[in-house]
Amino acid sequence: MHGAVIHGAGDVRYEDLPDPTLEHPTDAIIRTVAACVCGSDLWRYRGTNPVPRPTPIGHEYCGVVEEVGAEVTDVKVGDFVVGGFNISDNTCALCRRGATANCLHKQPYAGAQAELLRIPQADGTLVAVPGRPDDALIPSILALSDVMCTGWHAAVVAGVGPGTTVAVVGDGAVGLCAVLAAAQLGATTIIAMSRHADRQALAREFGASHIVVERGEAGAEAVRALTEGIGADCVLECVGTHDARTQAIACVRDGGNVGLVGLPHGDLPMEDLFWRNVGVKGGPANCRAYLPHLLDLVLRGVIEPGRVFDLELPLSEVGEAYAAMDERRAIKALLRP
Amino acid sequence: MHGAVIHGAGDVRYEDLPDPTLEHPTDAIIRTVAACVCGSDLWRYRGTNPVPRPTPIGHEYCGVVEEVGAEVTDVKVGDFVVGGFNISDNTCALCRRGATANCLHKQPYAGAQAELLRIPQADGTLVAVPGRPDDALIPSILALSDVMCTGWHAAVVAGVGPGTTVAVVGDGAVGLCAVLAAAQLGATTIIAMSRHADRQALAREFGASHIVVERGEAGAEAVRALTEGIGADCVLECVGTHDARTQAIACVRDGGNVGLVGLPHGDLPMEDLFWRNVGVKGGPANCRAYLPHLLDLVLRGVIEPGRVFDLELPLSEVGEAYAAMDERRAIKALLRP
Repeated sequence: MHGAVIHGAGDVRYEDLPDPTLEHPTDAIIRTVAACVCGSDLWRYRGTNPVPRPTPIGHEYCGVVEEVGAEVTDVKVGDFVVGGFNISDNTCALCRRGATANCLHKQPYAGAQAELLRIPQADGTLVAVPGRPDDALIPSILALSDVMCTGWHAAVVAGVGPGTTVAVVGDGAVGLCAVLAAAQLGATTIIAMSRHADRQALAREFGASHIVVERGEAGAEAVRALTEGIGADCVLECVGTHDARTQAIACVRDGGNVGLVGLPHGDLPMEDLFWRNVGVKGGPANCRAYLPHLLDLVLRGVIEPGRVFDLELPLSEVGEAYAAMDERRAIKALLRP
Repeated sequence: MHGAVIHGAGDVRYEDLPDPTLEHPTDAIIRTVAACVCGSDLWRYRGTNPVPRPTPIGHEYCGVVEEVGAEVTDVKVGDFVVGGFNISDNTCALCRRGATANCLHKQPYAGAQAELLRIPQADGTLVAVPGRPDDALIPSILALSDVMCTGWHAAVVAGVGPGTTVAVVGDGAVGLCAVLAAAQLGATTIIAMSRHADRQALAREFGASHIVVERGEAGAEAVRALTEGIGADCVLECVGTHDARTQAIACVRDGGNVGLVGLPHGDLPMEDLFWRNVGVKGGPANCRAYLPHLLDLVLRGVIEPGRVFDLELPLSEVGEAYAAMDERRAIKALLRP
């Protein structure tokens, strides 16, 4: 089979690789229908994270089950499935509390930008889609593998609920999905902080009630002007830079919450957060816990998170997908074998 | 009138002071029935915080209204009232969201360890107790002024609810009240971390299901042994030292929450918290938001937080109250004029 292998900064190649095989009785092998490139894949592509040796890459996928191990009972050969970017058994003490991102048996994928993929803990990771979904639904199902679950996680951990006011920092695929999540969870005022006309338009379609183009203190002032002068109840930080985190803390009201799904950069100003009673929570999304509900919303046509994909390429052109995202020519690239 | 004045480290005096007067139409003057000494008052007594000039001290009280300003409508002369340690108008945009600790019109007290006290924003700060409460209820009503609301806040911001597992770090008055709060909020496993037999006994009476005497990694291991090996859903940090915070983070499960009411000391290990999906929230308690419910629980005899007081002295002996708490001869001292 063929798949993407990162060799170093700026160097992702489409290569001939050994077919994956069942290694444990809880494994499944799936044939990929669609995969994509994640913002976090770019850390190695941009040289931010090292690449010690050539490594298969990718962690977002949907596909059809080809083979299952002897202990797999919930998915079967021929099922169309989607799984989150983190592997979970969905039975451990943490999974039972919904903390599937931190499953006691979590492990990395071997590289999902490939024609075939071994899924460890198949029953606990995969969710089967009834029948064979219409091709038009594939992007939205694929988006559940990471960005939609991640935007949803930001909203959940920040306590978004009916009647809350929400500001979203970051207008990439995750930020746009966070807007969609906030709308689904009942927020009334949803402020998307964005400077790009195309992303602003999609944010509005996803449910943003207001757009704020300013950043820094001017951005926080604009958010306060829309929230009775106090700041948003919930701020969803979907970037992962120091500036974005500072922006998020500046935009949240006293007693409110910041949901973090951007990667951590530096420590938090704890004394300020304490006196302001601001909560901070975040991390990798609990995909398996969220997948059934979000898949239902997609299948019923309530949400269409696949609209964040603005580039589609054959899997064989995976190198160009990385380049397009690196050069910001695309928000997010979908790949089909 | 007479009241406590701190002159410097180790030097609290009972002095003749001018009677307070109404300064704004929203003020009330109350005659103190009981007051007490807070752990945070000891920061100045111990020289941790400076005392630039002799300053009236204290922020916990209950008493009878003597006089009200022209715009005070909800409490009236003769009412027995209790107020929280933070002043709130209970009408601003933050108060309307329950964030009364961060009221847009918050301000400090002039010193509540005194015979008479001016209460700014009287309607938004004070809650009237129906009739004149039985003398036996005074300690529990007084406890609502700070420690019970603070323990409750720790539990609320950490998300304590029915069926949760909770560990409480700190067995002072706030820690003990946090145990009581966790029990009222429906926690099933409530682990009090305490080395003192008398406090362990009171923690058990307040609802602790388990006592852990170990600290550090041994303490965290003991908590994990009581929580399916993963740590507690919610950890309530009621001390405010670096060691206590480290203990709290070590005791919480991945995906769980730390409620902080101990004062911040240093920054948080954000990267570790992120990958573990651990939330952190805390600060000064939203007393006015919690008071009506907690007062109802006290008046119905459901909770008896006043049991944290283990020393009662005349207000004139306030210096001895400070010394007893400083020397750990008392958990918390109640003072009666």
